[in-house]
Amino acid sequence: MYKVIYDTDPGVDDAMALLFLHLHPDIDLIGVTTVFGNASIETTTRNALFLKREWGIAAPVAKGAGETIDPSRPHAGWPTFIHGEDGLGNIGVPETIDLPVDRRPAYRFIIDTVRAHPGEVTLIAVGRMTNLALALRESPEIAGLVREVIVMGGAFDVPGNVTPAAEANIHGDPEAADIVFTAPWKVTIVGLDVTTKTVMTGGFLAEMAVAGGKDVQLLADLSQFYIDFYKQRVGDGMVIHDSCACVYLVAPELFETRSGSVRVVCGGLADGQTIQKPDGRHFGPSAWDDLPSQMVCTVIQPEKVLQVIRTALVESVRA
Amino acid sequence: MYKVIYDTDPGVDDAMALLFLHLHPDIDLIGVTTVFGNASIETTTRNALFLKREWGIAAPVAKGAGETIDPSRPHAGWPTFIHGEDGLGNIGVPETIDLPVDRRPAYRFIIDTVRAHPGEVTLIAVGRMTNLALALRESPEIAGLVREVIVMGGAFDVPGNVTPAAEANIHGDPEAADIVFTAPWKVTIVGLDVTTKTVMTGGFLAEMAVAGGKDVQLLADLSQFYIDFYKQRVGDGMVIHDSCACVYLVAPELFETRSGSVRVVCGGLADGQTIQKPDGRHFGPSAWDDLPSQMVCTVIQPEKVLQVIRTALVESVRA
Ligand SMILES: [Ca+2]
Ligand SMILES: [Ca+2]
Repeated sequence: MYKVIYDTDPGVDDAMALLFLHLHPDIDLIGVTTVFGNASIETTTRNALFLKREWGIAAPVAKGAGETIDPSRPHAGWPTFIHGEDGLGNIGVPETIDLPVDRRPAYRFIIDTVRAHPGEVTLIAVGRMTNLALALRESPEIAGLVREVIVMGGAFDVPGNVTPAAEANIHGDPEAADIVFTAPWKVTIVGLDVTTKTVMTGGFLAEMAVAGGKDVQLLADLSQFYIDFYKQRVGDGMVIHDSCACVYLVAPELFETRSGSVRVVCGGLADGQTIQKPDGRHFGPSAWDDLPSQMVCTVIQPEKVLQVIRTALVESVRA
Repeated sequence: MYKVIYDTDPGVDDAMALLFLHLHPDIDLIGVTTVFGNASIETTTRNALFLKREWGIAAPVAKGAGETIDPSRPHAGWPTFIHGEDGLGNIGVPETIDLPVDRRPAYRFIIDTVRAHPGEVTLIAVGRMTNLALALRESPEIAGLVREVIVMGGAFDVPGNVTPAAEANIHGDPEAADIVFTAPWKVTIVGLDVTTKTVMTGGFLAEMAVAGGKDVQLLADLSQFYIDFYKQRVGDGMVIHDSCACVYLVAPELFETRSGSVRVVCGGLADGQTIQKPDGRHFGPSAWDDLPSQMVCTVIQPEKVLQVIRTALVESVRA
């Protein structure tokens, strides 16, 4: 069993990934930590509690950061045109959910939980990297206690999505991402290079909802607004960014990776851009030297990834 | 006939491209302008005069910039480990060449020559972009008078070569390159995405020297040091960066391109990085908006490019 803490800003594609982590038989979801991004921290935390209640998720929810690790960064507004005003496709999520959050802030929850299970916890981070960076700042030694960090974020050999240089999760807190990628732990980065190739059609999702029952039906309902957004861009379907990172955990053989140190540009034209120095390539002295090699996903098998998701969401319900 | 001004920092691969421009039957080389980069401006200008004398090139040589357009940029030293102490593979270029340079600085030569042939001149720039940027600063209207600008430089979907972010010609004067790429003229950029795929073996060059006679033999001699440098990287052969840009002029069908505005990162971690906003992609407001679309080469047919070079260097001598 993979013990997972899921760091997330639900968000529509976050919701699909959460249901996947909840239902996959080899995954033990031991915590959900929230972060701002697709919506404010109040909204993403409320949404995490809503999904916990609707889907009967046992894991505690800890509320995380509501602003960038460098508080002087200007705030850019929420992408309501992608995720809806409520962050979950305008399905009418109640204002408040009557469930408790963990009493600790997310970074503290991460530190305590990692220490309680040394070498066992995988952090899957699919929002801004703020909580992970705060945890590293508070307790750098947790880097040696985490099994693996899997990140949805960045754009390496392809353009970004917020600007031509930068992807949203990284652009939303570049300083935090640079802390996370340069820390001495094992990070695998699942970025736009592979996620944009992984499109789930509306038909595929509707079929899963029929086969999977009411939990998947809720997922399909809250995804419609997001699918409508992507219709102009990828045709009838949704790019399932965050689920790709979760599938990597259980099926890494569906990805090709490239190793090398990774830095994040902070400030200027390329603010939030992720740049890797591939191992084995020679350059002059640079800001990438003497840093841990991380893994960047460069190739994905989209059809097989979709099947892994379908199996978890549909078969586990039947079993 | 294509009227060409060749802006260059010879430089070994610059020399091959110069011989190509000199010998190609469809090209009228009407000027050579020098710039610092592979060596100091004194050395690259001396080398241009040396090659002019040895190869009997009629075009005048105008001496160009010896420092970045922003003079406060620190100077990084010359890549003598690639091009030799003399910039031409340590073949023993004489200290001075008894030929005159044009009395005008390179940027003035460019302005005057473009004005004299409105709509006809192609600028092929294979060093730092300083001279072109100075010409634009002095006479912005020349942008409307140039036929096309073809640049060897940049790295778009691949890593750089000076740093993981940046290619040498652009990294050597990022502010100048940003001026050139954002000006209202047609720029085609032949960068590492395609040039690093175009490797000429030592055997190919030696065979050309036998078939092409003493001009090509000189080219082969001055290329040996450069070939030895690339041996550790690409096996027995040389990456013929600058010649790729010249072949683009006469055989653009051997390349695939992507259109979109291009900016250059100035300062910070990604200093000198080239980033394109592909046309048809949607982003939020960004520094790429409302700028001219330029063409970036993304695919090349290396074997056919090599044959175009061979034909020019060998057949033209026989004819
Ligand atoms: Ca997310
Ligand atoms: Ca050059």
